[in-house]
Amino acid sequence: MSELLRGGRLSSSRRDVIKFTSSLASDEKLLKHVININRAHIVMLVENGIIKKKDGSKILRALSDLKNKLSLREDVEDVHMLVEEEVIKSVGLDVGGNLNLAKSRNDQVATAIRMALREELLNIMEMIVNLQEAVIQLAEKNTETIIPGYTHLQPAQPTTLAHYLLAQFDVLERNLKRLMNVYERVNQSPMGAGALATTSFPINRERVAELLGFNGLIENSIDAVSSRDFLLETLAALSIMAVDVSRFAEDLIIWSSMEFGLIDLPDEFTSTSSIMPQKKNPEVLEVIRARMSTILGDFIIASTMLKGLPSTYNLDFQEATPKLWDAAEIMIEALWIFSETVRNIKARKNVMKKPLLSFLTATELANMLVRKYGVPFRTAHKIVGTLVKKLMDEGKTLLDVTPELLMKVSAKFLSSPLHVKVKEIREAIDPASFIMLHSVRGGPSKDEVERMLSIRKNLPNRYRREISSERKRIEDSIDILNSIAESYTSQV
Amino acid sequence: MSELLRGGRLSSSRRDVIKFTSSLASDEKLLKHVININRAHIVMLVENGIIKKKDGSKILRALSDLKNKLSLREDVEDVHMLVEEEVIKSVGLDVGGNLNLAKSRNDQVATAIRMALREELLNIMEMIVNLQEAVIQLAEKNTETIIPGYTHLQPAQPTTLAHYLLAQFDVLERNLKRLMNVYERVNQSPMGAGALATTSFPINRERVAELLGFNGLIENSIDAVSSRDFLLETLAALSIMAVDVSRFAEDLIIWSSMEFGLIDLPDEFTSTSSIMPQKKNPEVLEVIRARMSTILGDFIIASTMLKGLPSTYNLDFQEATPKLWDAAEIMIEALWIFSETVRNIKARKNVMKKPLLSFLTATELANMLVRKYGVPFRTAHKIVGTLVKKLMDEGKTLLDVTPELLMKVSAKFLSSPLHVKVKEIREAIDPASFIMLHSVRGGPSKDEVERMLSIRKNLPNRYRREISSERKRIEDSIDILNSIAESYTSQV
Amino acid sequence: MSELLRGGRLSSSRRDVIKFTSSLASDEKLLKHVININRAHIVMLVENGIIKKKDGSKILRALSDLKNKLSLREDVEDVHMLVEEEVIKSVGLDVGGNLNLAKSRNDQVATAIRMALREELLNIMEMIVNLQEAVIQLAEKNTETIIPGYTHLQPAQPTTLAHYLLAQFDVLERNLKRLMNVYERVNQSPMGAGALATTSFPINRERVAELLGFNGLIENSIDAVSSRDFLLETLAALSIMAVDVSRFAEDLIIWSSMEFGLIDLPDEFTSTSSIMPQKKNPEVLEVIRARMSTILGDFIIASTMLKGLPSTYNLDFQEATPKLWDAAEIMIEALWIFSETVRNIKARKNVMKKPLLSFLTATELANMLVRKYGVPFRTAHKIVGTLVKKLMDEGKTLLDVTPELLMKVSAKFLSSPLHVKVKEIREAIDPASFIMLHSVRGGPSKDEVERMLSIRKNLPNRYRREISSERKRIEDSIDILNSIAESYTSQV
Amino acid sequence: MSELLRGGRLSSSRRDVIKFTSSLASDEKLLKHVININRAHIVMLVENGIIKKKDGSKILRALSDLKNKLSLREDVEDVHMLVEEEVIKSVGLDVGGNLNLAKSRNDQVATAIRMALREELLNIMEMIVNLQEAVIQLAEKNTETIIPGYTHLQPAQPTTLAHYLLAQFDVLERNLKRLMNVYERVNQSPMGAGALATTSFPINRERVAELLGFNGLIENSIDAVSSRDFLLETLAALSIMAVDVSRFAEDLIIWSSMEFGLIDLPDEFTSTSSIMPQKKNPEVLEVIRARMSTILGDFIIASTMLKGLPSTYNLDFQEATPKLWDAAEIMIEALWIFSETVRNIKARKNVMKKPLLSFLTATELANMLVRKYGVPFRTAHKIVGTLVKKLMDEGKTLLDVTPELLMKVSAKFLSSPLHVKVKEIREAIDPASFIMLHSVRGGPSKDEVERMLSIRKNLPNRYRREISSERKRIEDSIDILNSIAESYTSQV
Repeated sequence: MSELLRGGRLSSSRRDVIKFTSSLASDEKLLKHVININRAHIVMLVENGIIKKKDGSKILRALSDLKNKLSLREDVEDVHMLVEEEVIKSVGLDVGGNLNLAKSRNDQVATAIRMALREELLNIMEMIVNLQEAVIQLAEKNTETIIPGYTHLQPAQPTTLAHYLLAQFDVLERNLKRLMNVYERVNQSPMGAGALATTSFPINRERVAELLGFNGLIENSIDAVSSRDFLLETLAALSIMAVDVSRFAEDLIIWSSMEFGLIDLPDEFTSTSSIMPQKKNPEVLEVIRARMSTILGDFIIASTMLKGLPSTYNLDFQEATPKLWDAAEIMIEALWIFSETVRNIKARKNVMKKPLLSFLTATELANMLVRKYGVPFRTAHKIVGTLVKKLMDEGKTLLDVTPELLMKVSAKFLSSPLHVKVKEIREAIDPASFIMLHSVRGGPSKDEVERMLSIRKNLPNRYRREISSERKRIEDSIDILNSIAESYTSQV
Repeated sequence: MSELLRGGRLSSSRRDVIKFTSSLASDEKLLKHVININRAHIVMLVENGIIKKKDGSKILRALSDLKNKLSLREDVEDVHMLVEEEVIKSVGLDVGGNLNLAKSRNDQVATAIRMALREELLNIMEMIVNLQEAVIQLAEKNTETIIPGYTHLQPAQPTTLAHYLLAQFDVLERNLKRLMNVYERVNQSPMGAGALATTSFPINRERVAELLGFNGLIENSIDAVSSRDFLLETLAALSIMAVDVSRFAEDLIIWSSMEFGLIDLPDEFTSTSSIMPQKKNPEVLEVIRARMSTILGDFIIASTMLKGLPSTYNLDFQEATPKLWDAAEIMIEALWIFSETVRNIKARKNVMKKPLLSFLTATELANMLVRKYGVPFRTAHKIVGTLVKKLMDEGKTLLDVTPELLMKVSAKFLSSPLHVKVKEIREAIDPASFIMLHSVRGGPSKDEVERMLSIRKNLPNRYRREISSERKRIEDSIDILNSIAESYTSQV
Repeated sequence: MSELLRGGRLSSSRRDVIKFTSSLASDEKLLKHVININRAHIVMLVENGIIKKKDGSKILRALSDLKNKLSLREDVEDVHMLVEEEVIKSVGLDVGGNLNLAKSRNDQVATAIRMALREELLNIMEMIVNLQEAVIQLAEKNTETIIPGYTHLQPAQPTTLAHYLLAQFDVLERNLKRLMNVYERVNQSPMGAGALATTSFPINRERVAELLGFNGLIENSIDAVSSRDFLLETLAALSIMAVDVSRFAEDLIIWSSMEFGLIDLPDEFTSTSSIMPQKKNPEVLEVIRARMSTILGDFIIASTMLKGLPSTYNLDFQEATPKLWDAAEIMIEALWIFSETVRNIKARKNVMKKPLLSFLTATELANMLVRKYGVPFRTAHKIVGTLVKKLMDEGKTLLDVTPELLMKVSAKFLSSPLHVKVKEIREAIDPASFIMLHSVRGGPSKDEVERMLSIRKNLPNRYRREISSERKRIEDSIDILNSIAESYTSQV
Repeated sequence: MSELLRGGRLSSSRRDVIKFTSSLASDEKLLKHVININRAHIVMLVENGIIKKKDGSKILRALSDLKNKLSLREDVEDVHMLVEEEVIKSVGLDVGGNLNLAKSRNDQVATAIRMALREELLNIMEMIVNLQEAVIQLAEKNTETIIPGYTHLQPAQPTTLAHYLLAQFDVLERNLKRLMNVYERVNQSPMGAGALATTSFPINRERVAELLGFNGLIENSIDAVSSRDFLLETLAALSIMAVDVSRFAEDLIIWSSMEFGLIDLPDEFTSTSSIMPQKKNPEVLEVIRARMSTILGDFIIASTMLKGLPSTYNLDFQEATPKLWDAAEIMIEALWIFSETVRNIKARKNVMKKPLLSFLTATELANMLVRKYGVPFRTAHKIVGTLVKKLMDEGKTLLDVTPELLMKVSAKFLSSPLHVKVKEIREAIDPASFIMLHSVRGGPSKDEVERMLSIRKNLPNRYRREISSERKRIEDSIDILNSIAESYTSQV
């Protein structure tokens, strides 16, 4: 008999086939939305005189009852059928059979996924903001913590930990913006598209969209049931963020290695050994790094699934949806634990004391000769290059440069050798003054970093408010739906 | 000696190593931008009093000369080095050596890629608009061309070719919007970030950005040289579009098969056989479909390359850039030839004449019973289901339904059997009236399709103007740069 | 206290961190193997005099007890720690603490994965054989079922369903062979490699391998703990098969479309509609096709995870393992349901009756002119091409060729026109005789197909025997381990 | 007229379409094989009496002429058509038109790809062997070079560079074996399959296979033209190797960082700076690492292209082939330059002198207490753990352990405190003796490493001989073909 309930859709009688093709496992996320969609649809049908208010009210009451007690059963094909079955069980076929009047599983599932997804997107955004805050916190403590900046994993120039962290903040910022772009296109309603050709009943698609908190329609009905680009662009945005998060984790794993030793990871985010307490395995960061690959994989899987499909609806779609929830869950968990990790990182001081790192400021010594003594740029570089080579050959560091040495070396390249002051040399080669001098917009100098910090500090709170207000907007729509439904059912 | 020219960067003396690590092959796209970056940088250095106007002018003249005559040589590592070498060759080391004062290859390459990429993005957008126009053209001719709409590759409901094409238009529209989002984040200037820590010279990053037509800065200098998310998000947007384009091609390949026979592909876009003229192999569409996989692959490759990298610059970046040009070129060519194909497609008429397709309107017969005779929805479906089964068993089509038959069948389900008029049956089961009745927003009815068409018709021209105006804006910036550079050099 | 039990490995005290880094969820597959590894290790330690027999016996008894009652708890990091904890709980720290003497979690986990994987590989092989049998069954019924062979989704030449199915058999055969190659490299023991440097205790790695049913060692200890290529090559082999299975499903989906209509899918493997009984949505095949993308994704995810990792062990490895079980499970389920589907497919007869398909034999008409009348190959093609065009223009089929028509057309190309017999024409253009004539090795003629069938028919049984015998070999090893362990514990 | 030459295949007359669908760019690799296939086919046709010897001889002569002078032109669709056109141009249509008698582009292209691929596979194998040799060379010099073995990028236990390199050797060995498995399945002939259904002419497929040096047939003709699994399994094997090569490069990049400092990369394989000579950017290794992603991408692209395709031939296939050549070329170049890099690496001595690394042998101190003083395993670990903590707190290293200290600490855990000899402590904590003691099969001890080296040393030469002999075997077949062809043409 169950086949009669289902818009005439007959599924298999073989258990193994039902289990194989069932989407129930991943439908849990959709359940409450499917119920709300059905409610909004019924309200609209009544408002447009397509079904009788009396019938509508009965269905609405049955749907409200479902909300609290429904659990997913194993032997049903999907959540849409489950809801329909339960409603008919409750109010009978003649009334309950109208639940699917002027709609179809095809538009309903697309709508439900979008509703669940917009919630997930807001959750992810909140987690990004959370990590931004942790980054800001750590940066504020480390505006004077000098570290080597690396290129090719080789030390290149001094910078500060705060400067680095602000870069990570801005990376997260762009990811947030990308998700905001995605959100706009996700939050559009396909309802009313029917199986693919809308319906011959005079429905009001805009009204349903409004009651469900959407900010617009996917207008063309073929597009509405056939397109899953909103799913791909979510996964794409998460994949790009996955690459960024993985690189951030990679930096911290390397910097916490015994050899680099720039930072200490908090004990509870590593595994250690009672016999080798010096060894802290960065397990949390490794798991974060690894899981980011799964998010990228989810995008690829969904793309590959969809790529070969003709229009409009194919059951393959059903297999793509769980990849969305998988990627969202991984990202949310990873951002959470990453925030906790970052908040508890301790920077090591004095990392610039390693002798070889003294040479990181060699370029600045050359720049000083250009700036203060008018030496041509390339000549200045040659002088300093020769100087550095000499020092290294003698096992010395850049701290051993003296005015005399500089005079002697410069004599080879200039007609009149340079007489540079000790203080000028000290200033040029000191990492702290290197950083102070790099005060151009976006640079590592304390002033500039604090300027950037002061602007970024207020952003997380602003974003939290925006996220809250969007959640509120959606809840308000559902509240209106609730009160209309209640007003109906109270009259029955 | 070449090592002295290169900001002190020493590359290998082994031919095989230089060849292996060289990026020259894909640097061609960057050459003109690298020259302009150098010019803007020099203008700014002069304006800010960092180098003498006289020296700046000489360098600017050398750079202008380069513009026309420079060709990429095999034995050079990259385009940045080539330009510097040529300038020094032309104006000598003391003056020309200043070309790299206060900048680095790291910020320069990121800037050049973004400049080349914004051009490509505009080109791709133009091609999308081109395909949109072709789609509109074909749609306008086919607002009354009825075709079966398919789900699961099985005919489901009647629709029109125009309705389907408008769905494709909207799909393209979202792709266009995504690229516009991407464009905003691409068109930001990293210049002035130096190797990673800006510079101690008092440069003006905003000025350089302005002269190069950027609409903002990538502010943090570590972020500026270390991030390639702009590259990934371009490839991601192209990958999503690749899935859409592939699905569009798939539909046309299937529909042009002898068995489906909905459309005729133009001869010159297929390969045929002199002995089997009925066989038209849809070669262009097959190649389009296949190449879309490469675009997806380019995204995956670039993501995988970047995912494991620590900050800031690593030479791995260099290998990711060509994937960008590859994907852009494939997409541009594919969209072009796809537009040409679509423009020349002929729809077959009368495809609905196949007997089995008559049953596509069965649901509408049931809907009519609900609407006009107040039959409960599920009961109406049962009546029609029983009817259809009977007809099929007797080898008949839905066209064979008569009032008598309907009366007989309905008697099994209703206390008083239905007396439906012939005209009502005819209207319900006629595909043309099915479509006329589906006039809800976004539906296939001619009126609704024409309404949607009339709005979309004007979009391509609007987008063309926007693209042109953005190109103009960039050119204007470069014109200003040209006139400043000329005013300098004319004074030398 | 738990930290003392764990080889001195200290994990976090934060619940969220333990949950985040735990592998318990996917460790279920490993549990019985981890217990067996521990048992074999202890037996070897006793045999080599490294621990006392008395102590070894106690541990073995504790491990045997575990076998039946152990369940995975939420609060433990992984299965290795769980087993150690339980043993120590049972026999005390002084004795039980020796469980990890001369071994490490690093070699143990690699060994356990390989043991679980070899079982899965045998299961997958069995499912391939199962599908091969289904293919053979369907082929045997259809050696004379003529279908169009398609290229570019366009009908090209007649063939038979059996001929096509034998191609699928051979595709599966190569997949089976690939998995056999993989199996050889999987079934190698890493045990004894320790954390990465073996151990200073005089262990016998070969003995442990033998007791666990391995056919060799991963000799180098760094290689043994650091390599996961066995995991990648399993996923790669499954990915290749996934492409093949997806293509097979694609063929059946297209062929079961109303338009192609070559086959009927069994009702219980499709979803149908009570109102549109002619529409059978090929849901099982669609889900199979979609899930094959996930297998490909699993390979990509695991590759991307591993690609950036330095040697030797990194926790990222832990995240790659579940992809193996995921891919294996998907493949096993899909092959099972695919076999059931294939077994129940019905071929439609008379599909060659469609008028346009008559032209598929045109090339054979030309070939006949070459063979019987010595017409040059190209000239024969021109004659037939002209003929076909003429027929099509007149709305006729190839069945309308007459000797007169052929004579008339040939006169344009030959000095003396051809006088061909009616019978010769009939034979050439008849699909059945087309097929009979294509009797070259590997061709569709009934004789040749039956020859191929007769050879392939026996393979499934042979493979089943081989799989059984390999399972038996492994069980025998474990039986020996059991009896040694029992003989020890019975003495305690 | 060109269409008459092409087996009646009519291609487009639009330049842009021909360019878009042309495969010429990647057909260069196929040219000589296509000529040989044509020659073998003609020889077989003559031998089987299907064409006259006289005609065959003329065609063979034309084909021989082509071999030397043919160049690929832009305006042709593919290499198959080019060869046919040229032959017909040379010997006329009546004779030359027979070139395509009893064969098709579908079987010919599959055959040509396999012939080109088997050559590439042998080239790749040779490069693997080359890298194995470089690894052996470096290992032989470093059997006593102690380095920390890392897990989680944290130092874990001492090992030697040679031990590590032997692990890499074995990794390469498995990659070689995988390619050998692939080679067997690649080197099978599809020729004679025709378009998909063989031919009605009595050809001899085995003979053609033999003349072309194949070791068997792809028997079923549908399988022969429809399957591209040989392409996927080549790309899969290369992808797995790509992961391995990338990880090897990653190790060397990290180890050559200033902070890790285990090895010195040769100057000519890095880029350095005249002003910062201490900075050696590992550019070659970075490019290797990056390009490995492209190989993985090639596999994904080809898989995604093929996954959705119905049987048999689709033009999409054409787009998959270049990915094969791309991946092969990248791998060959990378392995070559990697070998050169490895050969020139210098290991740093005394890397174990860093104070923190002294603790790496702590576990061995505990093992010694178990072995020599019968301390229970876990108790020994607790004693040493307490000891290590005490030393670290006091800023000391493991070298500071004395018998007195050990006695004092052990007293907390044992009823009678331990009296250990100085020599025993020294031996236990000395990295060199740690390594000597780890002499289990596969371990780092010098004896064991030399044993493993002595076996592996001979393998490269053995493999080179096998590769040469396989090349010889193929050449011999072609030589036979040449001499038959010559014997024919000399008679004309």
